Amino acid sequence: MSDTLRRQLNFTVEVDKLKGVLRQTLLTDGSRHENSAEHSWHLAIMALVLSDYAREKDIDLTRVLTMVLIHDLVEIDAGDTYCYDEEARRGQKDREKKAAARIFGLLPSDQGEKFLQIWREFDALQTPEARFAAALDRLQPIMHNYLTGGVMWRHHGIKKAQVVERNMPMEQGAPDLWRYASALIDDAVEKGMLAP
Amino acid sequence: MSDTLRRQLNFTVEVDKLKGVLRQTLLTDGSRHENSAEHSWHLAIMALVLSDYAREKDIDLTRVLTMVLIHDLVEIDAGDTYCYDEEARRGQKDREKKAAARIFGLLPSDQGEKFLQIWREFDALQTPEARFAAALDRLQPIMHNYLTGGVMWRHHGIKKAQVVERNMPMEQGAPDLWRYASALIDDAVEKGMLAP
Repeated sequence: MSDTLRRQLNFTVEVDKLKGVLRQTLLTDGSRHENSAEHSWHLAIMALVLSDYAREKDIDLTRVLTMVLIHDLVEIDAGDTYCYDEEARRGQKDREKKAAARIFGLLPSDQGEKFLQIWREFDALQTPEARFAAALDRLQPIMHNYLTGGVMWRHHGIKKAQVVERNMPMEQGAPDLWRYASALIDDAVEKGMLAP
Repeated sequence: MSDTLRRQLNFTVEVDKLKGVLRQTLLTDGSRHENSAEHSWHLAIMALVLSDYAREKDIDLTRVLTMVLIHDLVEIDAGDTYCYDEEARRGQKDREKKAAARIFGLLPSDQGEKFLQIWREFDALQTPEARFAAALDRLQPIMHNYLTGGVMWRHHGIKKAQVVERNMPMEQGAPDLWRYASALIDDAVEKGMLAP
């Protein structure tokens, strides 16, 4: 076997660990916490279905798919950081940078470098593809929180202003989807799922 | 909200159910059964990493990604059919056809029809993209079975000839990956993980 294939297969085995990284979000039936691998799959399905709602037209869909598929791989080392946990978020950038270097470093160097660039692009939110991918990454947990009666919002004592601040960047990536998310947030407050 | 967006969001919620469909395959650490959503994500990562091994060059990667991301959605209604369970496989085609009509039918009709065509293309194995996607769908469980000491092969009393017959079509989609899978199968027999 070539060294290239050996490295690619090692990476393929390593990424299996993402299925064991649990997020705060519950499945829509409330039965259990979601893991970051199935979350990434869900975003990829949403990218396929909702690509017409990207703010900029003619986005590179393969790039969006690559972003959402790999964006959480760093959590294999760095763990999932709850977006409303200010203390945990403090060290997040450093943890994830180190994780990206190790995990993408398992690949043949040119391929690893390509993945690392796409991961950084997602993180930097400077391209239409990154902004659309990030909008999906925000929309999905809002929908799950809403559909599970806001149980994790209430569990963590989250307030509407926090949810709006965290998710407003959706507007830059997918304005129509942000309009829908805003309506869900308002309705969640009205129904007592989310503190005003 | 437009009827189009409403249908797309309903579909987005419906697909969450795939996270609850369990496969026979275990995670590589043996801790639990894999579900079909995280399995689909794993195949998409493999498609990104291993696309150079497709038999035909210049395959349409977005189409491969779409195939592996949606190929198991029918299991929401039809359940996962174990590939070595001949009795369960008898009704599989019919069950999955009905499921595809219902699930892709949730989408706006033009989009649903597009997804249905791609799902059928995957199933028919007549295009380079479908053959490559199917090769990944076979390689991944072989790797998981090998890495977990063949516990599910042994549990179901599977023999080498069955594994070879089931997986030989890999050769049509990704000959180098089939060579690697064959070596794993031989080694599994030698180590007593798989009956000769």
